[in-house]
Amino acid sequence: MSDLVSRRNFLASTTLAAAAVLAAPRRAHGMLVAPETKPFADWKMKPVMDFSRSPYAKLRQVPVAAVTVTGYWASRRKTNVESSIPSMREEMVQHGRMTNFERMQGKSKEPQKGPMYSDSDMYKWTEAVGYVLQSEAQPDLRKVADAQIREIVAVQEPSGYLNTYYIEDRKPLRMQQHTQEVGHELYNMGHYLQGAIAYYRATGDPTMLNAGIRFVDDFLLPNYGPGATQTPIVSGHPEIEMSLIELYRTTGNKKYLELAGYILHGDTRWTIKPSAIVYMYCGIPFPQRTKLEGHAVRAMYACCGATDYYLETGDPAYWKTLEGLWQDLVKHQLYVTGGVGARAEGEAFGDAYELPNARAYGESCAAIGNMMWNARMLAATGEARFTDVMERALYNGINSGMSLDGKLYCYRNPLAFEPATGDVIRNPWYDTTCCPPNIERTFASLPGYFYSTSKDGIYVHLYDASEMNWHLEDGTGLKIVQKTEYPWKGDVELTVSPAKPHEFTVYLRIPSWSAKNDVRVNGKAVDGAKPGEYLAIRRTWNAGDKVELAMDMAPRLLQANAAVMEDVGKAAMQRGPVVFCMEGVDQRAQNQGLNLSNLRADLKGETKVRFEPEMLGGVVVLEHPGRVMTEQAGDLYRVGVAGAGENTATMLTLIPYYVWANRAPSAMQVWIPFREA
Amino acid sequence: MSDLVSRRNFLASTTLAAAAVLAAPRRAHGMLVAPETKPFADWKMKPVMDFSRSPYAKLRQVPVAAVTVTGYWASRRKTNVESSIPSMREEMVQHGRMTNFERMQGKSKEPQKGPMYSDSDMYKWTEAVGYVLQSEAQPDLRKVADAQIREIVAVQEPSGYLNTYYIEDRKPLRMQQHTQEVGHELYNMGHYLQGAIAYYRATGDPTMLNAGIRFVDDFLLPNYGPGATQTPIVSGHPEIEMSLIELYRTTGNKKYLELAGYILHGDTRWTIKPSAIVYMYCGIPFPQRTKLEGHAVRAMYACCGATDYYLETGDPAYWKTLEGLWQDLVKHQLYVTGGVGARAEGEAFGDAYELPNARAYGESCAAIGNMMWNARMLAATGEARFTDVMERALYNGINSGMSLDGKLYCYRNPLAFEPATGDVIRNPWYDTTCCPPNIERTFASLPGYFYSTSKDGIYVHLYDASEMNWHLEDGTGLKIVQKTEYPWKGDVELTVSPAKPHEFTVYLRIPSWSAKNDVRVNGKAVDGAKPGEYLAIRRTWNAGDKVELAMDMAPRLLQANAAVMEDVGKAAMQRGPVVFCMEGVDQRAQNQGLNLSNLRADLKGETKVRFEPEMLGGVVVLEHPGRVMTEQAGDLYRVGVAGAGENTATMLTLIPYYVWANRAPSAMQVWIPFREA
Repeated sequence: MSDLVSRRNFLASTTLAAAAVLAAPRRAHGMLVAPETKPFADWKMKPVMDFSRSPYAKLRQVPVAAVTVTGYWASRRKTNVESSIPSMREEMVQHGRMTNFERMQGKSKEPQKGPMYSDSDMYKWTEAVGYVLQSEAQPDLRKVADAQIREIVAVQEPSGYLNTYYIEDRKPLRMQQHTQEVGHELYNMGHYLQGAIAYYRATGDPTMLNAGIRFVDDFLLPNYGPGATQTPIVSGHPEIEMSLIELYRTTGNKKYLELAGYILHGDTRWTIKPSAIVYMYCGIPFPQRTKLEGHAVRAMYACCGATDYYLETGDPAYWKTLEGLWQDLVKHQLYVTGGVGARAEGEAFGDAYELPNARAYGESCAAIGNMMWNARMLAATGEARFTDVMERALYNGINSGMSLDGKLYCYRNPLAFEPATGDVIRNPWYDTTCCPPNIERTFASLPGYFYSTSKDGIYVHLYDASEMNWHLEDGTGLKIVQKTEYPWKGDVELTVSPAKPHEFTVYLRIPSWSAKNDVRVNGKAVDGAKPGEYLAIRRTWNAGDKVELAMDMAPRLLQANAAVMEDVGKAAMQRGPVVFCMEGVDQRAQNQGLNLSNLRADLKGETKVRFEPEMLGGVVVLEHPGRVMTEQAGDLYRVGVAGAGENTATMLTLIPYYVWANRAPSAMQVWIPFREA
Repeated sequence: MSDLVSRRNFLASTTLAAAAVLAAPRRAHGMLVAPETKPFADWKMKPVMDFSRSPYAKLRQVPVAAVTVTGYWASRRKTNVESSIPSMREEMVQHGRMTNFERMQGKSKEPQKGPMYSDSDMYKWTEAVGYVLQSEAQPDLRKVADAQIREIVAVQEPSGYLNTYYIEDRKPLRMQQHTQEVGHELYNMGHYLQGAIAYYRATGDPTMLNAGIRFVDDFLLPNYGPGATQTPIVSGHPEIEMSLIELYRTTGNKKYLELAGYILHGDTRWTIKPSAIVYMYCGIPFPQRTKLEGHAVRAMYACCGATDYYLETGDPAYWKTLEGLWQDLVKHQLYVTGGVGARAEGEAFGDAYELPNARAYGESCAAIGNMMWNARMLAATGEARFTDVMERALYNGINSGMSLDGKLYCYRNPLAFEPATGDVIRNPWYDTTCCPPNIERTFASLPGYFYSTSKDGIYVHLYDASEMNWHLEDGTGLKIVQKTEYPWKGDVELTVSPAKPHEFTVYLRIPSWSAKNDVRVNGKAVDGAKPGEYLAIRRTWNAGDKVELAMDMAPRLLQANAAVMEDVGKAAMQRGPVVFCMEGVDQRAQNQGLNLSNLRADLKGETKVRFEPEMLGGVVVLEHPGRVMTEQAGDLYRVGVAGAGENTATMLTLIPYYVWANRAPSAMQVWIPFREA
């Protein structure tokens, strides 16, 4: 503490201007100097992941600031900026997340509050603000964030160490093996670096980033790593890997990439319990993984880091592993909502095909990790199968994680719900509040996932009314305007305007769910569109060229693989990228006091589609013919199986899954039992 | 330790005969004297639960030794005595369960081994041996058990305390609140007392029982309880309650009943976390419970203790609660196998209707607890609904817990299984080895659950080839011989032979699953048999009178309540008391490399029944028409729902659930998806 207090006195006694204080100079022999590694000076107009120098990236993301969204996502993003981000900061402040920093400067007498990973919540929030500031000037928000960053960097120790939990009595625990396994020190720093990079790319202010570099340069690298005099590293909760690689991308200093590679490989000097190797999804060489297992968020973040490592190194063992894990994901582990993580126990992946509905864990953070991973796989390949998974997670399992008013969050995202259980799924605060700022950073960064460039053109990944102002990789300026009412309608008109007439390829994503597609360029049909692929349209483009895409928005009944035992005899409804659910409050039968579980969908019924502008923020609602089965007299088991006669006709009303639980508590089902007859 | 060592020296230096040493006299001022409370001297021919003086017991169990079983259960019980009990003792010895006692006498240098509840495993094993010795002379087994008891009582401390875990460094933790909540001290003593009582009732040797009485009289009662100078008690893992009440029944000393009542009521002086009150199923007054929740074994044992308390006190608040909890059990929480406990997480009851199949926990101990509870509810009421649950658990969810060779045990008893998960369900040993000796004591005590007496006659609960030699409550000798091939055939011939012609009622259980029943006395039809009730046949009975019962053994397709979302579109097959399952190894389709999950049962198909004497110890096998659905190409989700055309006919082979996993690892399903068409 004496170091910290003297540092505070030092800072208070200087006459440095606020800007200089923010630059958080480095301390050496009592003097503060800048860190050795410096971020690239061209901080402006950077993407979420900067693949511009990544040799194994086929695609490069377009900056967040290059895309202005005006359609479907605009309202969610407006809520995010105006409601979620400010109210979440208030929640975090109220729950002591900032006094943890203030007490270390003697500004607060509150005790340490929150779990050991609480610092990361502030950092993730800062990252969200970074993306907001990349897109738009928000002077008030910037002021709050600047001040917060000042409080955070002020408690960095001369050694470079920065953490509000492992201090005082807990100081001896720092970076011990057990602490590394469960203590989230490097997880915190990973989120710190991601927040710092996003903030730097928004403002050019290196204050937070420089302090992060000092943590890595001064504290971590000299003392921890593979060297004989160094202590091993195990990341415990993967996150540091991808952040170190983004730090490499931000500074050009290869040591960060090498450190990430070392961590991904694991260090055999430490013996780690087999159960921890499964749970933590780290501690053995990443290429030894053969399936998704253990803690779902850890596994997804590890896959992100490993894909980032592949994108920089091209290590074929990594790619082979990543491809195998992705196959495991889509064949055995992925909820129809794009969520992952079947088990509350260990917040974990289950066995293959273990996808319970009411008990689904489907943590919002895991769905986000899934999207982040697939975005990286997409960059490596340009293959639309990864975009399909991204989109599925985004519109459903991530989107469900924030209420329409932006102030309530899901931790779990189950696919069925019964209010009699007493569970409250949407809450303003969780003591482990990882999910809320994670959703906030995702929505804030979303424009950065719309497009990528490649050597030969531009990829269109996501459809929404929007305007992109960017350039091709050869420097030719390019503007693309999307007009669409996606995801409610399947027609998209893209106006492609290069700065000058220019030959390049527009890669148009054809979603795997769209069976029939009509593509036209300036009114003329283009052949070759295949579901689940990018349609390459190569020509000389002139300003104002129009690409029209008409996707197949017919509602589709989905069935799960027969091995998903809980979904046998049930169907899910998807229309476009949106997965639907049945909520009790909407069912006529429910209004008559009947149980949601007694409703059956008629397999051969025709689904009616209508848009309800006043309902749940404006959504498409589906109506599907069904039956009300005769209520059972309370018996758990009875002889015989209900025959076709015991039912009356009804209409089932389905709403988008992501808006469930925005009204009174009500039963909900994504997978709806059907009747063949 | 010095106390213990000096005690050992004292014992070694005495010239007392072995019998006198076994009597384990009490120590007072350096002298060993008998405990104040003494068990009733008439130890012979006692039942499992001695309701003979219980004012609110309508029925009284018939002693284990009064019934000789020669039919279905005889072979399981023979395996139990000849294979399970000896091999389990070897396993326990190998895993240090006895060196824990020996090291406290300086006879072993091994460290303490096993979890904190390891002593209880030896006690439960001793209880099993007690029931065996009640039924039959097994001199070798008795010798081993006698020696083991000698080792156990030798480590009792002068204070009366007896436990091999809370010694040395852990001694200060004894009976602290946290230890009481999680440490199983009283759980261990509960099993000790049950073991001691069963052994006393087998042999008349009070050695073990007296030491248990000393634990309660000298250590527990003076120091723990409601008094101002006493430390509160929370049982942590309920078990002590029912054992104290059986101790009351064994000694007539009401203080044990009062202590059990105090524990069941909870002590408000200690604040217990709400989550612990749920998990432990204790810590608040039992009558405040409104549903089954938390750890399933704890809840079932708590219900046993509470029912025992009702049987002695008639407290209407207890009965109201027990009836409500029982309704919760049969309406929301009971697996079709009689197992309970849906969740591995917390080994817990789930929400209402939460009954997953592959992930079912269904711990063997919980199914046993369920049977033990229902046997008590039956004693309170004479109502056959409780016998129905007992029988369902016994033939299925308990019976499955031990392999046919008696050497492998299930901890979990799932209702579906996929070998690709890598789970190994049957194992010779678990470090928490609660289930194996629990199954052993259940099978050993089973004859004690066949009959009860009432004021006006005799109740026949369970059917199996057997001979009962006992007497009515008025003292009239009574022999009943059952001839039957139950559970494979539904015909039972009971020869009722009172010692002299005598008027009394034979209460014949009509199982709830038997829709049509034919009852005859000496060939003459008797009306009034109703499924799920006891048929009262009152008459003057003469030696050799024959009662014939023909039950309805038609295989029955069962469906679960629509609210059990995992069982929608699936059916289970039951025949008599036996629940069936489909095991992959038996399916023709499986032999062609098809997946069990692609099989469908035809709802309207006719089930064929055959007895296979050479298969799995001799079982009925069912064949039911079904379909092999077209295998999916590995997709997790696909558009459209499989139509009627995509299948080929097959025959599904079903075996009794309890014999699953006795061959090569194979997929298994109790709930089989059906097709209406």
